[in-house]
Amino acid sequence: MMQSAADRAGPAPASGPGFADRLDRAIRTAGSPVCVGLDPVLGSIPGDVRARRPDAAGAIEEFCSGVLRSVSGVAPAVKFQSACFERYGSAGVAVLERSIGLARSLGLVVVLDAKRGDIGISAEHYAAAARGLGADAITVNGYLGPSTLEPYLEGGLGLFVLVRTSNPDSDAVQAHRLADGRSVAEMMADAVATAGHERLGACGLSDVGAVVGATKSSEGRALRARMPEQVFLVPGYGAQGGTAEDVRALLRSDGRGVLVTASRSVIYAKGDGSWTDAIAAAARKLADEIRTVVG
Amino acid sequence: MMQSAADRAGPAPASGPGFADRLDRAIRTAGSPVCVGLDPVLGSIPGDVRARRPDAAGAIEEFCSGVLRSVSGVAPAVKFQSACFERYGSAGVAVLERSIGLARSLGLVVVLDAKRGDIGISAEHYAAAARGLGADAITVNGYLGPSTLEPYLEGGLGLFVLVRTSNPDSDAVQAHRLADGRSVAEMMADAVATAGHERLGACGLSDVGAVVGATKSSEGRALRARMPEQVFLVPGYGAQGGTAEDVRALLRSDGRGVLVTASRSVIYAKGDGSWTDAIAAAARKLADEIRTVVG
Repeated sequence: MMQSAADRAGPAPASGPGFADRLDRAIRTAGSPVCVGLDPVLGSIPGDVRARRPDAAGAIEEFCSGVLRSVSGVAPAVKFQSACFERYGSAGVAVLERSIGLARSLGLVVVLDAKRGDIGISAEHYAAAARGLGADAITVNGYLGPSTLEPYLEGGLGLFVLVRTSNPDSDAVQAHRLADGRSVAEMMADAVATAGHERLGACGLSDVGAVVGATKSSEGRALRARMPEQVFLVPGYGAQGGTAEDVRALLRSDGRGVLVTASRSVIYAKGDGSWTDAIAAAARKLADEIRTVVG
Repeated sequence: MMQSAADRAGPAPASGPGFADRLDRAIRTAGSPVCVGLDPVLGSIPGDVRARRPDAAGAIEEFCSGVLRSVSGVAPAVKFQSACFERYGSAGVAVLERSIGLARSLGLVVVLDAKRGDIGISAEHYAAAARGLGADAITVNGYLGPSTLEPYLEGGLGLFVLVRTSNPDSDAVQAHRLADGRSVAEMMADAVATAGHERLGACGLSDVGAVVGATKSSEGRALRARMPEQVFLVPGYGAQGGTAEDVRALLRSDGRGVLVTASRSVIYAKGDGSWTDAIAAAARKLADEIRTVVG
């Protein structure tokens, strides 16, 4: 039988430490809980890359390679926005496969931002797909119910479940108040906390994390109280208006429990030197800022 | 510039009639509102196909080709479960591209069951990816807010928004009661009805449909009242326990507004003749049953 992508990825990471422990170690090594988001959009890629690689998928691959080499050693983790690669069909998915492989070879923890959510065997297939790509964790949508999270965990993946997202329009669903007094987001948070308690790492954090935007600090405190064991993947810092204070509201009392993600402000950074120098500088600036917040 | 998958797909279907009108016409031509789900799982594919095509992606491609040729002329629409193809990485996505191309050439309306849900430019990329694959419509998850539906519609795609799914565990999220008396599913239904009213076709149905499982007929009536203009994509009939009565509860008073989907009961049908004959017979049986229900 021909090698499938899943075969190529080798054994699932379930055999070693779980996701939370691997992430915790990577954060301690790097010294700052930041995650650089790779959301490559062709029109924003440096002109010299586009000139060398006139095909869209090739330009994105070379750009991702430059970003990954620039941020490794500074950021413990990277997050790939699956949509930006799927946009180019099977050729784009092949670039995603190779880029995740490079990220892993550079020692980066890899989050696949795919926001998948399906039932039964379809969820098993999405889990196998993410493992096949080489991801350590995947973002998922829990609208179909908490049991839909299980296949990913059984496959050895960490999870970040969408709880409270940073986009303004999310209020129209997530801020609704239930009859029992909780918001929809708090109901999802409780489901995440329950599912995650069965998956605690030695570090005291769970393999089941949550996406909680940095633009809602008042709600953030309430969500942290409901999810004491979760790592929060935190979008919205910087470009979307989230502040250091917003991030502080999401921390556990021990200063842990967040992975702050920034994309455009890092990967499209401008500077006097090369574009890779500018990205490395922006990643260091982000890491330094967040180190101050959590320290 | 190298042709991307999106380029290959030609112009977005937005230039002609919208999705609801194209689906309505296809249903009238076929005479029954059924949709065959392609959720190919390697272990369930006929042995002769696996013997001829020892690579997983190749076996799935040949199986999908047999299914599509067997159901065309009987079912107006097919639904591809994206996870089953993504499972095999870029090679699997290439099979999905070619299989959707074949479905379109056979005159079938194509629903991509991908349950995507993201914000801003990521949603735009998912819409472009679905268009690039050749899909007429895509299933989406609205947890991130109603405005996240717009990019798909602007790209000329029809939508089926997850409202009330057929899996038992969905109650843990969708059945919660809001302070205003609605369930979470009803809240989502109202958002879908509002978004969809701006996208009415000449047939009186909207390009924005909803996924409503066939296993909840009591709730189904209430959801139909809230979404009079929506086509309901209805999983759960047959294999998951949904009955003719459950489907009847979802109809509009004019007998329209459903697209009943079945997968395993059709694509893995057994019979005395070839596997393609068995699939064709199972598709006809499904179409006949549902014709009686809606007629």
